[in-house]
Amino acid sequence: MPADVLLFSNSRPPGAEVPFAHAAEPLRRHLGERVVWFLPWAGHDLDAYTGFVGDALREVLGPLDVRGLHAEPDPAATIRDADPDRETVFGGGGNTFRLRRRVGDNGVLAALRDRTDLRYAGASAGSNLACPTIMTTNDMPIVDPGGLDALGRIPVQINPHYLDPDPHSTHRGETREERIHEFHEENAVTVVGQREGAWLHGTDTSLTLDGYTARLFRRGHEPAELAMGTDLTWLTT
Amino acid sequence: MPADVLLFSNSRPPGAEVPFAHAAEPLRRHLGERVVWFLPWAGHDLDAYTGFVGDALREVLGPLDVRGLHAEPDPAATIRDADPDRETVFGGGGNTFRLRRRVGDNGVLAALRDRTDLRYAGASAGSNLACPTIMTTNDMPIVDPGGLDALGRIPVQINPHYLDPDPHSTHRGETREERIHEFHEENAVTVVGQREGAWLHGTDTSLTLDGYTARLFRRGHEPAELAMGTDLTWLTT
Repeated sequence: MPADVLLFSNSRPPGAEVPFAHAAEPLRRHLGERVVWFLPWAGHDLDAYTGFVGDALREVLGPLDVRGLHAEPDPAATIRDADPDRETVFGGGGNTFRLRRRVGDNGVLAALRDRTDLRYAGASAGSNLACPTIMTTNDMPIVDPGGLDALGRIPVQINPHYLDPDPHSTHRGETREERIHEFHEENAVTVVGQREGAWLHGTDTSLTLDGYTARLFRRGHEPAELAMGTDLTWLTT
Repeated sequence: MPADVLLFSNSRPPGAEVPFAHAAEPLRRHLGERVVWFLPWAGHDLDAYTGFVGDALREVLGPLDVRGLHAEPDPAATIRDADPDRETVFGGGGNTFRLRRRVGDNGVLAALRDRTDLRYAGASAGSNLACPTIMTTNDMPIVDPGGLDALGRIPVQINPHYLDPDPHSTHRGETREERIHEFHEENAVTVVGQREGAWLHGTDTSLTLDGYTARLFRRGHEPAELAMGTDLTWLTT
């Protein structure tokens, strides 16, 4: 039976200063007292980033054992051997292409695919990794990702840091909505544009939006607004 | 001897309505009276897009023979057989990952690599394709590109549609400058952040910025502002 996922756009809604302060309750329920294996590979300084996120989570949740998976002698084996009642996984933010490349190269991607019984949480790039592919990332392809396929822990794509079009912009590049429309020129999978602070909580029988609002993009449909607390289980069947 | 390249951020500077009106002179010199083979694969409706760009160029330049390379029976052969004095290539904008995938699949990428004697112009995705890699695109990876390596017609990376950080934004995603910094965590190649309306003109002995300003990002250096008309030849040696 697939374990719960908790997928954040990022660690803070607009105006908030303390990372994850708005999400203390769902994080506490999700992580429980498990050891948190942190995936820092979207970042650059892996030790420093692991320390930063561990401190941020502890500030909100109290004592919590957050460990960088990169520091394990065999990160893939650590995932293969993990006890789902005592261990869980948190995918950190940064550059999604870098994260995909590193976990592809070191075997963690394959190991995680076999361990859908492990709870998974993520933010930004870590949320992209939980989707069917990383195709709805906003990041720059600074390294060859070695493939765009990802974990598929939910059947929809997240676009994190979703930005509404700015009517005053002189920018001639594509708006986020136009980019997602381009995605749907090539792919049929539904996209949830998560505004800052929003998260998706998935269980084996449900999918719910909370934390903030989001925008729903279904191929062949007009985009739709999603309020906090919206039940999205219908997207999973 | 490598032929000239003319690489635009996009077709219009801020406030301009008519595509390429600000660049009539350099375009006229660059294209001359050559047949323009247009690469429309970054777009979705290839015929419509070819017609749109052909009309836009003719509005500014007068009579011009713009043909969609996609409509040729063997696009790669058309490039292999092109006469550099009578034919030239223009890479259109849209999604860079889609463009890279299509020209990789149909052999046009390989054919263009062998024909550095053909003049090349591009805008946005078409400019990304002229760089060593497409790693500094802003686009969403809506298809697997089949590789990030590109034409290498200039030795620097272009970041088109360069956007300065917005100090009033509540967006928690990376700024463009932060994305380019991430690129330099992984790569040493210099990046020119082309603001809307800017272009690079490369010859076999020179590289010049014109049309608008840009921002220069060199690994290990503070970013620097580049005025219109800046000689960037020193970056090519």
